[in-house]
Amino acid sequence: GISCVLQDGEVFEKAGVNVSVVFGLLSEEAARQMRSRGKSLKAKDGKLPFCAMGVSSVIHPKNPHVPTMHFNYRYFEIEEADGTKQWWFGGGTDLTPTYLNEEDAVHFHKTLKEACDKHDLKLYPKYKKWCDDYFYIKHRGERRGIGGIFFDDVDSPSKEEVFQFVKSCAKAVVPCYIPIVKRHCHDSFTPDEKLWQQLRRGRYVEFNLVYDRGTKFGLLTPGSRIESILMSLPLTARWEYMHTPPESSKEAEILEVLRNPKDWVH
Amino acid sequence: GISCVLQDGEVFEKAGVNVSVVFGLLSEEAARQMRSRGKSLKAKDGKLPFCAMGVSSVIHPKNPHVPTMHFNYRYFEIEEADGTKQWWFGGGTDLTPTYLNEEDAVHFHKTLKEACDKHDLKLYPKYKKWCDDYFYIKHRGERRGIGGIFFDDVDSPSKEEVFQFVKSCAKAVVPCYIPIVKRHCHDSFTPDEKLWQQLRRGRYVEFNLVYDRGTKFGLLTPGSRIESILMSLPLTARWEYMHTPPESSKEAEILEVLRNPKDWVH
Repeated sequence: GISCVLQDGEVFEKAGVNVSVVFGLLSEEAARQMRSRGKSLKAKDGKLPFCAMGVSSVIHPKNPHVPTMHFNYRYFEIEEADGTKQWWFGGGTDLTPTYLNEEDAVHFHKTLKEACDKHDLKLYPKYKKWCDDYFYIKHRGERRGIGGIFFDDVDSPSKEEVFQFVKSCAKAVVPCYIPIVKRHCHDSFTPDEKLWQQLRRGRYVEFNLVYDRGTKFGLLTPGSRIESILMSLPLTARWEYMHTPPESSKEAEILEVLRNPKDWVH
Repeated sequence: GISCVLQDGEVFEKAGVNVSVVFGLLSEEAARQMRSRGKSLKAKDGKLPFCAMGVSSVIHPKNPHVPTMHFNYRYFEIEEADGTKQWWFGGGTDLTPTYLNEEDAVHFHKTLKEACDKHDLKLYPKYKKWCDDYFYIKHRGERRGIGGIFFDDVDSPSKEEVFQFVKSCAKAVVPCYIPIVKRHCHDSFTPDEKLWQQLRRGRYVEFNLVYDRGTKFGLLTPGSRIESILMSLPLTARWEYMHTPPESSKEAEILEVLRNPKDWVH
């Protein structure tokens, strides 16, 4: 794998890109997790050779008015006992704002929807919902952010068609996000807004360490590069006991949409 | 449960105490985890009534020369299908310094050893090792701190005798820790030392969210008080990509004992 991380920059507090190609034998625990989501994997002498490749990135900006963005697109292949190969694509792009900006949210989702719609009109609604379901911090009853798209185990209609779709999604990353960064990176902000950002970063850490499948898979894979896996964590985070924003505040406004995801494009 | 948290104090950045008494039905996942450590639990109609009580505390000081301390003592009871009750005690006290101070480490471990030795000379060595094994951040190859004692599932020689032992341990908490706080809470420190403390706090978060059984049990228990469970997280933490302290530095010195636990009392 190759990782590239920018730390303590002018606009970005921490921003990383990972390109990785890994292969080896699936650990027992990793196989168990895959089976738990419905895969039947027939191992040869208990061994499951796999090959996985992907690109992922997390960008945590300094300014609390610029949201955090994450994307990951990956391809996975497993060889079963009889030599047949199971393959699938997975990935997604999602946004984690500290404060809600409706215009940004709509722009982000619309750009993703356009990328999906070129392939199949059913994809965006399905993957938008999957994203809301996936980035759920169960113990908080909140999502990590305002979503985007997320999918996994996609192996139809054909390898070539799924690959074309994944390429469209990947190409949408820059037009999704960069306009939002440009619009807000010089916004002024208060110490209280910075503090709220740090509390939200704490939630980001909670999701990634407790629930994120990619992180868990990485931590379970012997010989994986821990620093690349945990690159997604913010530079700094904060936990305050029983922090509750006042009613009708900007902080309560974003919490509301994290608790009840919205349809941004209709 | 009753929680009490001090935040942003003069000496302590965040310090909390939890006293909790919970009962209900064990969740499927919690039962699975208990069975995985060797318990045979016969459920009645799939239901396992349980009762758990304990006191726990985590103290994260401001000054990087004052270590973080954690202790937890608990009693657990499960009613099986035939009405018989399984019970056990668990707990421990452990220290997480940012910088190594041998004198403090020896004082901390000696005080715990004395508490254990009153009951059985075999306890301290056994529970000291258990502590080093338990607080292991596998993906880092490091322990969370320099240990102390840890035990679980203790149900012999008798309920009364184990309770006496647990009381001795609990009484040792203050003499273990407070002298260390007093000795260092006015030590001067540099911004670099504060930064190293923040990076170590990041590791503390990693252990608690990825491995800690108490945290996991809490997050899995419906209706549990999330804020009390996550009270153990530091006020602030930091993650830098590929941070490696220079050889022979004070930072490398503590890392060495986190990688290779020492015997502090012989």
